[in-house]
Amino acid sequence: MPDPIRFAVLGCGRIGKMHAEMLARQVPNAVVTVVFDVVEAAAQSVAEDLGALVAPSLGDAVSDGEVDAVAICTSTDTHVDAMVAAAAAGKAIFCEKPISLDVAEVDRGLAAVSAAGVKLQIGFNRRFDPSHKAVADAVQHGAVGDVHLCNITSRDPAPPPIDYIRVSGGMFNDMTIHDFDMARYVTGSDVVEVYARGAVRVDSEIGDAGDIDTGVVVLTHASGALTTIDNSRRAAYGYDQRVEAFGNLGKAASDNYHDFNSVLATESGYRRPPLQNFFLERYAQSYLDQWDAFVEYVRSDRASPASGADGRAPLVIAQAAKLSMTENRPVRIADIDFGE
Amino acid sequence: MPDPIRFAVLGCGRIGKMHAEMLARQVPNAVVTVVFDVVEAAAQSVAEDLGALVAPSLGDAVSDGEVDAVAICTSTDTHVDAMVAAAAAGKAIFCEKPISLDVAEVDRGLAAVSAAGVKLQIGFNRRFDPSHKAVADAVQHGAVGDVHLCNITSRDPAPPPIDYIRVSGGMFNDMTIHDFDMARYVTGSDVVEVYARGAVRVDSEIGDAGDIDTGVVVLTHASGALTTIDNSRRAAYGYDQRVEAFGNLGKAASDNYHDFNSVLATESGYRRPPLQNFFLERYAQSYLDQWDAFVEYVRSDRASPASGADGRAPLVIAQAAKLSMTENRPVRIADIDFGE
Amino acid sequence: MPDPIRFAVLGCGRIGKMHAEMLARQVPNAVVTVVFDVVEAAAQSVAEDLGALVAPSLGDAVSDGEVDAVAICTSTDTHVDAMVAAAAAGKAIFCEKPISLDVAEVDRGLAAVSAAGVKLQIGFNRRFDPSHKAVADAVQHGAVGDVHLCNITSRDPAPPPIDYIRVSGGMFNDMTIHDFDMARYVTGSDVVEVYARGAVRVDSEIGDAGDIDTGVVVLTHASGALTTIDNSRRAAYGYDQRVEAFGNLGKAASDNYHDFNSVLATESGYRRPPLQNFFLERYAQSYLDQWDAFVEYVRSDRASPASGADGRAPLVIAQAAKLSMTENRPVRIADIDFGE
Amino acid sequence: MPDPIRFAVLGCGRIGKMHAEMLARQVPNAVVTVVFDVVEAAAQSVAEDLGALVAPSLGDAVSDGEVDAVAICTSTDTHVDAMVAAAAAGKAIFCEKPISLDVAEVDRGLAAVSAAGVKLQIGFNRRFDPSHKAVADAVQHGAVGDVHLCNITSRDPAPPPIDYIRVSGGMFNDMTIHDFDMARYVTGSDVVEVYARGAVRVDSEIGDAGDIDTGVVVLTHASGALTTIDNSRRAAYGYDQRVEAFGNLGKAASDNYHDFNSVLATESGYRRPPLQNFFLERYAQSYLDQWDAFVEYVRSDRASPASGADGRAPLVIAQAAKLSMTENRPVRIADIDFGE
Repeated sequence: MPDPIRFAVLGCGRIGKMHAEMLARQVPNAVVTVVFDVVEAAAQSVAEDLGALVAPSLGDAVSDGEVDAVAICTSTDTHVDAMVAAAAAGKAIFCEKPISLDVAEVDRGLAAVSAAGVKLQIGFNRRFDPSHKAVADAVQHGAVGDVHLCNITSRDPAPPPIDYIRVSGGMFNDMTIHDFDMARYVTGSDVVEVYARGAVRVDSEIGDAGDIDTGVVVLTHASGALTTIDNSRRAAYGYDQRVEAFGNLGKAASDNYHDFNSVLATESGYRRPPLQNFFLERYAQSYLDQWDAFVEYVRSDRASPASGADGRAPLVIAQAAKLSMTENRPVRIADIDFGE
Repeated sequence: MPDPIRFAVLGCGRIGKMHAEMLARQVPNAVVTVVFDVVEAAAQSVAEDLGALVAPSLGDAVSDGEVDAVAICTSTDTHVDAMVAAAAAGKAIFCEKPISLDVAEVDRGLAAVSAAGVKLQIGFNRRFDPSHKAVADAVQHGAVGDVHLCNITSRDPAPPPIDYIRVSGGMFNDMTIHDFDMARYVTGSDVVEVYARGAVRVDSEIGDAGDIDTGVVVLTHASGALTTIDNSRRAAYGYDQRVEAFGNLGKAASDNYHDFNSVLATESGYRRPPLQNFFLERYAQSYLDQWDAFVEYVRSDRASPASGADGRAPLVIAQAAKLSMTENRPVRIADIDFGE
Repeated sequence: MPDPIRFAVLGCGRIGKMHAEMLARQVPNAVVTVVFDVVEAAAQSVAEDLGALVAPSLGDAVSDGEVDAVAICTSTDTHVDAMVAAAAAGKAIFCEKPISLDVAEVDRGLAAVSAAGVKLQIGFNRRFDPSHKAVADAVQHGAVGDVHLCNITSRDPAPPPIDYIRVSGGMFNDMTIHDFDMARYVTGSDVVEVYARGAVRVDSEIGDAGDIDTGVVVLTHASGALTTIDNSRRAAYGYDQRVEAFGNLGKAASDNYHDFNSVLATESGYRRPPLQNFFLERYAQSYLDQWDAFVEYVRSDRASPASGADGRAPLVIAQAAKLSMTENRPVRIADIDFGE
Repeated sequence: MPDPIRFAVLGCGRIGKMHAEMLARQVPNAVVTVVFDVVEAAAQSVAEDLGALVAPSLGDAVSDGEVDAVAICTSTDTHVDAMVAAAAAGKAIFCEKPISLDVAEVDRGLAAVSAAGVKLQIGFNRRFDPSHKAVADAVQHGAVGDVHLCNITSRDPAPPPIDYIRVSGGMFNDMTIHDFDMARYVTGSDVVEVYARGAVRVDSEIGDAGDIDTGVVVLTHASGALTTIDNSRRAAYGYDQRVEAFGNLGKAASDNYHDFNSVLATESGYRRPPLQNFFLERYAQSYLDQWDAFVEYVRSDRASPASGADGRAPLVIAQAAKLSMTENRPVRIADIDFGE
């Protein structure tokens, strides 16, 4: 067995703590050497729990000689600085999504990674969900033939707090961004045009905050495939996440998980429980599989399973969607993206 | 296209009328030439509707020169006489199940068929239900390997009238008989031993009439396969009919049909409608496919898809089941059947 | 029991013959008195089979004193003339969809119906499919709350002959028209704006004929609900027809029917058969229920379950969709429809 | 928040280690204070990992003043001695199943628990599986009415090593014992009679070792309910575990989990992956919920969710099943059990 990969985990909030615990306890060939958080107590608590050290600064964490890889789980606005520092230190990098809400900032981070020649994987965990992954795999193996249509239903069980909504960058950036990534991942083709409609149907407070809570998007891919996405911030029956890829040979589709797997049949019909309704529960396996993929990526010569370009593209699509919705017209990606 | 097979339909009650209409209107290569019923008005009505003639007697019907095949749909106690007459006239015979409740009578009928060398198919329509048939086909094609276990759930939506129960010959003869046939059909192996438990749980009036309404049967097959059957006269959620064959390579299983195919999902869960609950609705396709199979059987050199022996065996198993239940012990078929 | 409704069936092609047979044999309280077809032999054959008379002309058929209702099943371009004649004769009218591909012609027909004060039901049979109807009923009964999103997947098993494609009026008029009706029916709200994308992915010959075979449409309803429709002329796995209505209280969704209802489980997984793939098989029940609804409509004071306005609206939406696709921009219904 | 319950974990093999890790890391209000194993290195490894102490002897572990509860996860033959010691020390006890294969020994253990007045919960984890539990809950809440029938399908993905089979006490004691417990748990009624059939179909080596690998059992409950159980040591398609309770108002049924939740549809049909096939994966949630239930039980005045009597009854049923199979006759529980 090879030496384990030694991680510095940056950010010990909800998601950082989860990643640190997984790496320390559930991921083969991974150890957590140091952790860092701007709130020292948060770092201290995780470090004690996992037998790791607390780094005095982010710079110390990323340049630690006992560290092979850096997991960036800090707040979004600090991702790029951390990425640049980790790249300069020559470490392999895992970065939570989104890299940044500012595409120019994203480009600065990716340029640093590219210049340093280090590895980078973006935290699009849904790519590693076994059910969604099976759809992408079926497409890649040719089981559905050429993809003609892709349908993504993505509905949250409940909207986030209104204070979060205000700083989220809008529903397309905060929620649909996963679906933009999923569309590229599943079809294996870039997006060239976007048409988006949005509405406030769930909660007028969300509208007052300048955002939408209901949306429909049509994507045209470079391959000619067409994707539909429908979103809602509130599905009464739980966390509804389905992806379907349809082609000339058939279709592959992922389905949801119910709270438990039983049925009650009476003269009024058959009844099953609602869907799981917490993303950490629904996507627990995807987070683990994401780390296994990272370890394998760092150890191999393969391409990143969620590259910097994969992290950048959905941000541009989200911008196009916003513009499309505002002006009620289809928007070509080439007309708004001058990057790379 | 060959000349159609010309049928005499004996018996114009509910099931006879259904068969006559199917033969006249929905079965390719079949026509109804004459019909007969002891109630002449019943025969008259069907004949007019279908453009057939009314035979003055059962004997005239079966010996009609314009008739190739006889469909025996009269009351059970007259089946064997009709079979003997039709055999003597050299016609191909379709006979509704059961041939008779008296095994000696059955043997008299089968002997006549055998002596005349005519074709005979028994009306075990469930063999032609596409879902159950797919289970039997999977076994026959080797898809599940050697069959180790077979599970049959067979529950009616509601008990028949108590007057019918009184003359039905008991639940094992009236209802489980389909499952005994299904067990032989699906496993492709004869039954050598039976253990049966019965209870009155649905309606005490059924118990007062000397019958049971709930039962469990274990069958041991010649191949070593074990079958479980569970029966109830009343499933609140509809007509529950499932068959599963399990072997060393896997399993094949049939499932039910709901009233319609929709779901309602709310915060209290997912809801589908109850099951279809009328056997003519549930098994409509099987009746049609049964006729197609009969036409093909008459025209070809193949074996009967539901032979006289197939009609006889379940009656013997039902007798063994009754004895097993009464004495609460397993009963070997060889100990009660001295036939053939 | 009331006197049955006496029908004149106009047109004895595939669909007319099916309707005539259903009316004569399977619909309670309906009889077929006369039939007509421009090909006399076609009319003769149906008439003989059902014991009806052949009318010497369409005019004779609609004005027959022994006729209460007229079923218009002729070719599309003759619907309006037949409707005007039947209205003038004071008969109740059932008219196959589409009324006409020309909205002005539709308006002429509806004006005649209105002037005569006769009843009219358009043949949008999918409204009567029990699974789709359950979705509409759930919405109408408030079970899903306010509708926010509606998703319609509608994929045929195989494209029609290219000669048919050439005269079909294009995919939106020929195929999506059902989905436009479904969107209005299920949401209970008119459409105010359309955005459509089309592509040729299934067969380049379809493109050569000036049509598309793959499409995605977004509809905005007067209520604010958003509908997505995705279409393909060829689904390798069968006839894929699903409708989902999502609102603040949950969702209602219809699903497909497989060829039969069995599963084979082996070490390589669970396998079910493909979907039913002929529309007459998939929608058989809907055609019967459509006639029951017509009989009830004629006998009662209720509104038409598929009125003239319901027949007209999808034609206008289809025009808007065509324009939207051509100019790649959303099109408002009000900008192209100056009717009523 | 109350003080956490402090555990001594006895036995650090596969199952003991799993329990210790869950208690230390995933169960709220639980800590692991000491661990013990006859193989000191095993104890040492777990202790280090979890920050617990290694007890020099089992006696030291159970009498430790810093311990509130003892988890007995040692080999089956040492359970009763450990139980007696823990009872003497006044600790709450969790004991893995089976308590012992010797009913007299079980009675010695239960007597000690009873005399000491300590709490006891047996490790029938499947009672806490959310899907099976929902079936039991539905029965208990009256949703299916009086239970008439109970069907349990329980098939392992692969047989254990032949060396394990030899010391397992036989399939009824080792595997069906879960189903005997499930039948009592789900129906809420004791078993009064057993009929069992067994066969060697999977592997003749199992037969050579004196055991069976395929079985069918019929249980008669005190309530009159009838249970069928079918078992196989090898289901090619994964771990097949289903429970159904049927009564006068309907049925409740649990179903399996597939490896992932996707479908591939092509012209050859719909395909889903096989079932999960490792019991730690299939039942992971049940083990966690079992600990939550234990903590709640220790803290409350409620009855044990899996009492000593619940641990004893399946052992007696297994003896009866063995006798029934050997003599091929139904065996009454009262005829072999003279306990309590």
